[in-house]
Amino acid sequence: MALVSIVMGSDSDLPVMQKAADTLCEFGISYEMRIISAHREPDLFFEYAKGAEARGVRVIIAGAGMAAHLPGMCAALFPLPVIGVPMHTASLLGKDSLYSIVQMPSGIPVATVAIGGAKNAAILAAKILAVSDDALLDKLKQYAEHMKEAVAAKDASLQDEMNRG
Amino acid sequence: MALVSIVMGSDSDLPVMQKAADTLCEFGISYEMRIISAHREPDLFFEYAKGAEARGVRVIIAGAGMAAHLPGMCAALFPLPVIGVPMHTASLLGKDSLYSIVQMPSGIPVATVAIGGAKNAAILAAKILAVSDDALLDKLKQYAEHMKEAVAAKDASLQDEMNRG
Amino acid sequence: MALVSIVMGSDSDLPVMQKAADTLCEFGISYEMRIISAHREPDLFFEYAKGAEARGVRVIIAGAGMAAHLPGMCAALFPLPVIGVPMHTASLLGKDSLYSIVQMPSGIPVATVAIGGAKNAAILAAKILAVSDDALLDKLKQYAEHMKEAVAAKDASLQDEMNRG
Amino acid sequence: MALVSIVMGSDSDLPVMQKAADTLCEFGISYEMRIISAHREPDLFFEYAKGAEARGVRVIIAGAGMAAHLPGMCAALFPLPVIGVPMHTASLLGKDSLYSIVQMPSGIPVATVAIGGAKNAAILAAKILAVSDDALLDKLKQYAEHMKEAVAAKDASLQDEMNRG
Amino acid sequence: MALVSIVMGSDSDLPVMQKAADTLCEFGISYEMRIISAHREPDLFFEYAKGAEARGVRVIIAGAGMAAHLPGMCAALFPLPVIGVPMHTASLLGKDSLYSIVQMPSGIPVATVAIGGAKNAAILAAKILAVSDDALLDKLKQYAEHMKEAVAAKDASLQDEMNRG
Amino acid sequence: MALVSIVMGSDSDLPVMQKAADTLCEFGISYEMRIISAHREPDLFFEYAKGAEARGVRVIIAGAGMAAHLPGMCAALFPLPVIGVPMHTASLLGKDSLYSIVQMPSGIPVATVAIGGAKNAAILAAKILAVSDDALLDKLKQYAEHMKEAVAAKDASLQDEMNRG
Amino acid sequence: MALVSIVMGSDSDLPVMQKAADTLCEFGISYEMRIISAHREPDLFFEYAKGAEARGVRVIIAGAGMAAHLPGMCAALFPLPVIGVPMHTASLLGKDSLYSIVQMPSGIPVATVAIGGAKNAAILAAKILAVSDDALLDKLKQYAEHMKEAVAAKDASLQDEMNRG
Amino acid sequence: MALVSIVMGSDSDLPVMQKAADTLCEFGISYEMRIISAHREPDLFFEYAKGAEARGVRVIIAGAGMAAHLPGMCAALFPLPVIGVPMHTASLLGKDSLYSIVQMPSGIPVATVAIGGAKNAAILAAKILAVSDDALLDKLKQYAEHMKEAVAAKDASLQDEMNRG
Repeated sequence: MALVSIVMGSDSDLPVMQKAADTLCEFGISYEMRIISAHREPDLFFEYAKGAEARGVRVIIAGAGMAAHLPGMCAALFPLPVIGVPMHTASLLGKDSLYSIVQMPSGIPVATVAIGGAKNAAILAAKILAVSDDALLDKLKQYAEHMKEAVAAKDASLQDEMNRG
Repeated sequence: MALVSIVMGSDSDLPVMQKAADTLCEFGISYEMRIISAHREPDLFFEYAKGAEARGVRVIIAGAGMAAHLPGMCAALFPLPVIGVPMHTASLLGKDSLYSIVQMPSGIPVATVAIGGAKNAAILAAKILAVSDDALLDKLKQYAEHMKEAVAAKDASLQDEMNRG
Repeated sequence: MALVSIVMGSDSDLPVMQKAADTLCEFGISYEMRIISAHREPDLFFEYAKGAEARGVRVIIAGAGMAAHLPGMCAALFPLPVIGVPMHTASLLGKDSLYSIVQMPSGIPVATVAIGGAKNAAILAAKILAVSDDALLDKLKQYAEHMKEAVAAKDASLQDEMNRG
Repeated sequence: MALVSIVMGSDSDLPVMQKAADTLCEFGISYEMRIISAHREPDLFFEYAKGAEARGVRVIIAGAGMAAHLPGMCAALFPLPVIGVPMHTASLLGKDSLYSIVQMPSGIPVATVAIGGAKNAAILAAKILAVSDDALLDKLKQYAEHMKEAVAAKDASLQDEMNRG
Repeated sequence: MALVSIVMGSDSDLPVMQKAADTLCEFGISYEMRIISAHREPDLFFEYAKGAEARGVRVIIAGAGMAAHLPGMCAALFPLPVIGVPMHTASLLGKDSLYSIVQMPSGIPVATVAIGGAKNAAILAAKILAVSDDALLDKLKQYAEHMKEAVAAKDASLQDEMNRG
Repeated sequence: MALVSIVMGSDSDLPVMQKAADTLCEFGISYEMRIISAHREPDLFFEYAKGAEARGVRVIIAGAGMAAHLPGMCAALFPLPVIGVPMHTASLLGKDSLYSIVQMPSGIPVATVAIGGAKNAAILAAKILAVSDDALLDKLKQYAEHMKEAVAAKDASLQDEMNRG
Repeated sequence: MALVSIVMGSDSDLPVMQKAADTLCEFGISYEMRIISAHREPDLFFEYAKGAEARGVRVIIAGAGMAAHLPGMCAALFPLPVIGVPMHTASLLGKDSLYSIVQMPSGIPVATVAIGGAKNAAILAAKILAVSDDALLDKLKQYAEHMKEAVAAKDASLQDEMNRG
Repeated sequence: MALVSIVMGSDSDLPVMQKAADTLCEFGISYEMRIISAHREPDLFFEYAKGAEARGVRVIIAGAGMAAHLPGMCAALFPLPVIGVPMHTASLLGKDSLYSIVQMPSGIPVATVAIGGAKNAAILAAKILAVSDDALLDKLKQYAEHMKEAVAAKDASLQDEMNRG
């Protein structure tokens, strides 16, 4: 049983969405990852999105580009949080994806992250699950601590270099 | 039986979409007009879009604003032409609607017209039907003739005014 | 004790953010609502954002316009989900707010909703809390049912009108 | 005799527009493909666009970039459907082409597809012809079926990989 | 005989384009002003644009909005300078008009002025004619002198006010 | 003595502006080409722009990028036509240059061409000079004829290829 | 003698720029305010900008709209800090002004503030002068304190209202 | 003791921000350079920004990309001038960074330079310090003189080449 379902409409989005999977892994959060197209497989997609809650999914992360309908259609069919990841695109650079995902009408929100922000989508999913999971919340705090240390280490190495230089 | 189905997700789009209805009327083309939301009524929407062909619909005109998924989801479910009308929006001025409608992925085209271009959507529907309907094609040619005359009349009245002025 | 904290940097955002409060009310979710500026009151803001978890807050909804730093700075200090509401702005029409909120760097996500989408922010907060609250999830399903009925009623009234017309 | 006429203003658009030709081929739709510039050869262009109907053309697919006037001028001269393909451009990334094609004034619609969407233009042309051609409609349904299978196959291979991985 | 031809596609552009006429008047430059649509009256437009040189026109000023093809099509048919005036538009605020006018392909330039800049179009026409008309050049220099004095007067009145205030 | 002065603020614009020089050459129009910066050499620039008319210059072609002030400042100091060429830029892709050049205030027009459109700037300069130079006008007509033939040749070769293919 | 010179190219910018004057007043900073156009009065402008340092001016605040060259030309002629205020504009909403002011080439910076941000320009000028003026720095700290109190008061009144409501 | 503090949130900004350091070096201005993230190390960042004045810092140069909060948060905590450098970004090309930095609310200005304009940020810092440092002002005047000579040399070499060519 997966708590998070990662879904994308095309395997061309896989290299970006894999980062969401890897990050959920780091947090020890169970996930499924599917390639399902709302446009090309509407029936299968309906089945997938409607069945997600019953399968135990608590958060969907949907990545999509251009006229990115996948996250919004998930939000129409799945009653729990949907996180949308706008893909970078060749012509409109992801502005099309961003607007198609974030500008949802009243009643059907999609929690939108940055263009290409699949890693942040996973962290957001973790934060959502951590609302009722203290162990996960602790992991998120440790993760934040590690981010701090990583920046501090870079600053330390810059100071070293400047002192030597 | 209606040849054209006009659909919109919210009655706030009605004043714009009514122009499509009025124009189809002028051309004597039968139509239905529905308020159905792909986001708020996904099941009903599926039924509507999947059943359209069987009901005799040959062209769908779908108007939508913001993260405008209605035209694209129609195109995913209805095998004949779908025309998308991007609505003007308060914040992004219709750019969000336009991108969400026109930037469809490969395989699922939506015939997009100008922001707020419901009248042109109806004319485009007429042109599509006229491909196999010579009487309608004649009406379209007359319509074009009238547009010519209307502009010419305005020019004539400007020339009059300038001569008098 | 409030489960959701609504925060904005200026009372000019209140008319929009009040919709989030009203919607949380509808769902029976406890909330606080604060005017605190990350730019003008950085110390107070730090205290507020750092203390939120201990006060029992599980989700922050932060509304901000222009160079909208409030949601992102909340996300830097509060370990649970932060929802950002980009305000419409006079010059850049909310595009500045949207980019400043959604384009967060890796590690610090903000769940962004549409420009002016305070109501959707509240629904998203409800969905996040519903991950571990079945009664709330039921309310969300009823809410969705009511939205369906509202659209259906509008369609019915349009069909009536067209039949009469 | 060709049912569809593909036209572009410059041979630099050929690699993109060739995809329209290839897709029409797949559907067994007869087509002509021409390089004619509305700007550089206005007389020849007029002759071409005005003569298209008499030559048997039922749909024009016009690709153009930058100040992309070709599709709109076709629509001014040809009474049946014109599909516009906005070209990606070096500076404005195709936004100039898109606006120049989609924002047609009242009375003269151009059915606009995505930036670089030549393949979708051909599918749209097929859908338009299928309004009165059941055999073509069947081919379109098969095509949709193949798209479904292609996505399903990609998902299956992802599931395999994840199970193995 | 008119040296400058002002042309627009719709009488809705007249209030803006009238400023071009008024400014040409100030400079004593003969002009004609026409409402002719390249989209709705392509034949009449061709005749107009091709005949302009023979009628004595030396510069065309073309105003157009949205998918603004009129200036570019003038430039395709008239061998002397064409000045394009992008109209402000309701949805895309004139960005569509600007891109459709200024982004002309190699070989067919349109001298583009600011959105709504009909007055500047007339001044540019005057400058173009002044290349070979010393009396007109003198008028332009006087005009520049008057602009200087107008700004200086406003500054003087501000200084007065500040001294009094 | 040069009829046209090509000016740019930096030698990084030279590869683009050289196309203007080459095109003027083709038309046998005398020109000078200068690297002068309005920002870095304001005094020299003033001298240059103010002295241009006396040196016999009848048209200035100014290329500039980013906050592109050079064309507008030429127009403030030189009474005859100034043509502006917006340079493509790394971050804003030339939109910054375009807006800085085309959006001139009332009274001080700059004849703006496409982003990177140095060749068109030269053709426009030729058209401006041709207003009073019939021989040059003939050359422009021949040039247009050659453009026609070039497109026709490309179409012919495409037809050949398609017939063979 | 004025430490700060406020300059704008047109009296239409006065209502916005007056806020800069009022704010300097609050801080007790001496200023002059001038309407001088770099485009319409280039000679006077040169004199003004070159003479500013000798007159005792230490900071220039320049407001400008559309192709906003005034701040950048000030920066070319005045060796001390220039602050640019982009004006909101009717068509491009101030994006043209912003790009024309902020995208200065290497070597000639303009300290740019928000669109319409004349008040912030004055505060920035105060901060610049405070680098070497401890009394002014103290005033700035008091000003910040007052801003804090103003927000706190608004929050207090919201809490009151919510408690009563 | 450093007069200028250069700060950035990530070492990926170092290649750009190093240009600020190098330019300050050229002017003999003491500086520190730090990698500190307002998002990932909010406490350390607060300490840094609040302590800067006491450490002798008179100007902060902050570089940041995407939802670029670093400069604005510096301005909230440091009472003297803060200069913001918007980083170029992969998807929105630095427009996100620019808007997040320049569109600061009333009371908290950030002196914004061009996208990627780290060198100009350093020159602006020098100009700010030169308000009360005549020796530095002389260096800035010499620097301007060298820029002039560099452009003049490029023009001279172009003239040579054209004379030879």
